[in-house]
Amino acid sequence: MAKKQRTAITPTRAEDYPQWYLNVIKAADLAENSEVRGCMVIKPWGYTIWENIQRELDEMFKDTGHVNAYFPLFIPKEYFEKEAQHVEGFAKECAIVTHTRLEDDGKGGLKVAGELTEPYIVRPTSETIIGASFAKWVNSYRDLPLLINQWANVVRWELRTRLFLRTTEFLWQEGHTVHATSEEAFEETYKMLGVYAEFAEKFLAIPVIKGEKTEGERFPGALNTFCIEAMMQDRKSLQSGTSHFLGQNFSRASNIRYLSKDGVEELAWTTSWGVSTRLVGALIMSHSDDDGLVLPPRVASAHIAIIPIYRNEEEHQQVLEYIAKITDALDNLRYHERKIRYRVDDRDLTGSDRSWQWIKKGMPIRLEIGPRDIAKNAVFMGRRDSQNKTALGWKDFTEKVCDILDEIQTNIYNKALAYREEHTRIINSKEKFYKFFTPKNQAKPEIHGGFVYAHWNGDSAIEAQIKEDLKVAIICIPLEGDKEPGRCIFTGEPSPRRVIFAKKY
Amino acid sequence: MAKKQRTAITPTRAEDYPQWYLNVIKAADLAENSEVRGCMVIKPWGYTIWENIQRELDEMFKDTGHVNAYFPLFIPKEYFEKEAQHVEGFAKECAIVTHTRLEDDGKGGLKVAGELTEPYIVRPTSETIIGASFAKWVNSYRDLPLLINQWANVVRWELRTRLFLRTTEFLWQEGHTVHATSEEAFEETYKMLGVYAEFAEKFLAIPVIKGEKTEGERFPGALNTFCIEAMMQDRKSLQSGTSHFLGQNFSRASNIRYLSKDGVEELAWTTSWGVSTRLVGALIMSHSDDDGLVLPPRVASAHIAIIPIYRNEEEHQQVLEYIAKITDALDNLRYHERKIRYRVDDRDLTGSDRSWQWIKKGMPIRLEIGPRDIAKNAVFMGRRDSQNKTALGWKDFTEKVCDILDEIQTNIYNKALAYREEHTRIINSKEKFYKFFTPKNQAKPEIHGGFVYAHWNGDSAIEAQIKEDLKVAIICIPLEGDKEPGRCIFTGEPSPRRVIFAKKY
Repeated sequence: MAKKQRTAITPTRAEDYPQWYLNVIKAADLAENSEVRGCMVIKPWGYTIWENIQRELDEMFKDTGHVNAYFPLFIPKEYFEKEAQHVEGFAKECAIVTHTRLEDDGKGGLKVAGELTEPYIVRPTSETIIGASFAKWVNSYRDLPLLINQWANVVRWELRTRLFLRTTEFLWQEGHTVHATSEEAFEETYKMLGVYAEFAEKFLAIPVIKGEKTEGERFPGALNTFCIEAMMQDRKSLQSGTSHFLGQNFSRASNIRYLSKDGVEELAWTTSWGVSTRLVGALIMSHSDDDGLVLPPRVASAHIAIIPIYRNEEEHQQVLEYIAKITDALDNLRYHERKIRYRVDDRDLTGSDRSWQWIKKGMPIRLEIGPRDIAKNAVFMGRRDSQNKTALGWKDFTEKVCDILDEIQTNIYNKALAYREEHTRIINSKEKFYKFFTPKNQAKPEIHGGFVYAHWNGDSAIEAQIKEDLKVAIICIPLEGDKEPGRCIFTGEPSPRRVIFAKKY
Repeated sequence: MAKKQRTAITPTRAEDYPQWYLNVIKAADLAENSEVRGCMVIKPWGYTIWENIQRELDEMFKDTGHVNAYFPLFIPKEYFEKEAQHVEGFAKECAIVTHTRLEDDGKGGLKVAGELTEPYIVRPTSETIIGASFAKWVNSYRDLPLLINQWANVVRWELRTRLFLRTTEFLWQEGHTVHATSEEAFEETYKMLGVYAEFAEKFLAIPVIKGEKTEGERFPGALNTFCIEAMMQDRKSLQSGTSHFLGQNFSRASNIRYLSKDGVEELAWTTSWGVSTRLVGALIMSHSDDDGLVLPPRVASAHIAIIPIYRNEEEHQQVLEYIAKITDALDNLRYHERKIRYRVDDRDLTGSDRSWQWIKKGMPIRLEIGPRDIAKNAVFMGRRDSQNKTALGWKDFTEKVCDILDEIQTNIYNKALAYREEHTRIINSKEKFYKFFTPKNQAKPEIHGGFVYAHWNGDSAIEAQIKEDLKVAIICIPLEGDKEPGRCIFTGEPSPRRVIFAKKY
């Protein structure tokens, strides 16, 4: 029997994937549950990832002509009553403010008081409240397009929550745009889906599939919902961003009208699109391994941990002086126009303990530096994306570090892409389909399944049946790739093209 | 009779200061009221100022060793019950979530449902919820100091609201730190007050006075509250940032304890400090004039408006090509490490109309460029901080633009400082004090008063009497400047030093 290798995270992915996920978060000190139902505390190492995501995405939004604004946290109940599907989709899970005062309850505690005549809903999404402003801002075709983004917190009273993936409160951005024509609004919906896909692949190192949601999975009130979908290491799909073509539904509900060039009053066309702190969950589940978090450098909380190794105070000072030369050089570098983020970890712990902590935290590069390295003008480098450790000259290191970071970024992406490709199938029969998605051991289901491209007749009853039988959903109708028609593998009826099936979050 | 000069904003500051303030906001398109009680919508031109404030302050926080994190929006009611003064200070004005579902009310509308057993308070400030996390994070002296900041929205159910200055929901940052000793916590409280003062003066171009609040004006639960105070153009003081030394009150309430080097369990010492979107209000009221907003370049939404002037399409194209050369040059410049933010305003409006819009929006520099400027390789420049317009070579302009922006920044600061100095008095008698703060015309009080340095015996009854008589408060006990003792001008009793009196926001 092969000796089982010890890993920093137990259970491993293969042993218990959901628990592994939570343990990676804990070991990397990314976030924790709070005493507030379903709400998480995002700790500094995790929040920094979100800050980096924000900074990069914000730049992409601005480069595509969008500006930021801020709208109220609270939405009057009546706004929800204006768009029927929308309220149906969100009313079941919201936080409602009904009172405005706490008073002494006469028993040493506090009771609520100051009841509102009309309650407010804590925004689960902001189409209706932003629509109320847009109705005032838009008068003529000259005011269009209106391209607004908001960075905000939103609240959905979810029953089952999970750190980063699904929490009662989460952080996100929501883009809201208004256009004169259906075509322009559609173009915007696509464009922002493209921005999300580019961001996911280039910064998060997550390969994604751009697709359209089926009717049942649409955003409540949208005409079309587009998404980017990514395969996690348990082969489930995680919806990582959505872009909605809202048609005239919300402009009708909010009364967003403009005077056209011809002097005719027209209903406007709107879109909305969003990504959230769920992206941090996507990043964790895409790249981490049984030793903990693996961070892609472009959004990593930090790039380099520098660990001084010494036996006495004299050596300690020598090592710190030597490190100062290296950090001075790093301070002058720019990695894709950003500063190199390093941490000198001079804590009173063994070199091995410190090194393992940074491995678990996903630090792309570790440098261990002791007297022997000084003697050789070298650094001893460990990389998170491989097991190898290398000695190289310190000047050599500072000259190459940006290339090394890019190489790590590419490796991480390629690894995720290879994993997805390995677990993607084209399946042409119902039998093979059911077999592919059925675990071998029902008692303790192992990681199984993957992405399946299969023909489907477009019937939502079939979609529902598969979901009931296998917990498998149509994650999207892919926008790119093969578009040849065929026969539905469940009914034999005509299918315009293959769609993608998978288990999903 | 002198001919009255026309201004872009009516009423002027002298005519009706509060209305002038609202009209400046409207003319500059900074923000508007929403239908949600007391909540504002921050429009793009206003939000960009806040983004710039965030970016610069965030860098200063990080340079002083702080990291960002995120804590829940909701606070369990019981957390408020732990710190008596704190609940007293905030319980009267809070939004309370009591339900989690909307249901069909059978009359075509919606009713609230899903009542919570224990209600949640929407955070008015986060000491208690952050304290609950800190209690878990802090175990040993090795975990200290803990230096955390949060950028967030908070809600206080204010009765009287005013755009940016006092709104039900507002955006802010709240720093929360934990220390092993009282001295260290005090040092942190001072340090962050210093960061705020430096930021206000260097970036917002607002001269501020650092001081300590009197007992009655302290943050509920704090041992000492320090503040920066700025004089607005109606000579009232606006508290623009606060830093609180919380002693052990909140660590006791939240049970934040650590094991000292000597192995003894100790209660920790905490601080908190914050600034909010109120700073945008401070900026507006400090610098704007009767033609609208005046933006200090370091936080300006944009730096330069470029206005093409032409008579026909041929000239139009020539002008746009010429402008492209200038913007290419601007793209390569950095103003204090940031990109130069410019707008080419090619709207189909007269040059004068466009120019006035940018004046009202506070744009530091306007360039009007037409065929005659091209012939001379020149640009025609208007500055917001003066009435003068100058022609200069376009290369000359791009070489000097950063210096010009700095000069504008300095001018704006100096003007505000001169105004404050002009309206600051040392007063040594009660009679003169009362006269100084009494308007000449009670029916339509003109802008009057200012900052008064006067001796006070420290009695809060006297403080209350002055507030009742004159609506004048002790804005702070200044930390810097003259500290000679004297006699209280109201009672003749000893006074350790002069304090500052003013009307305030």
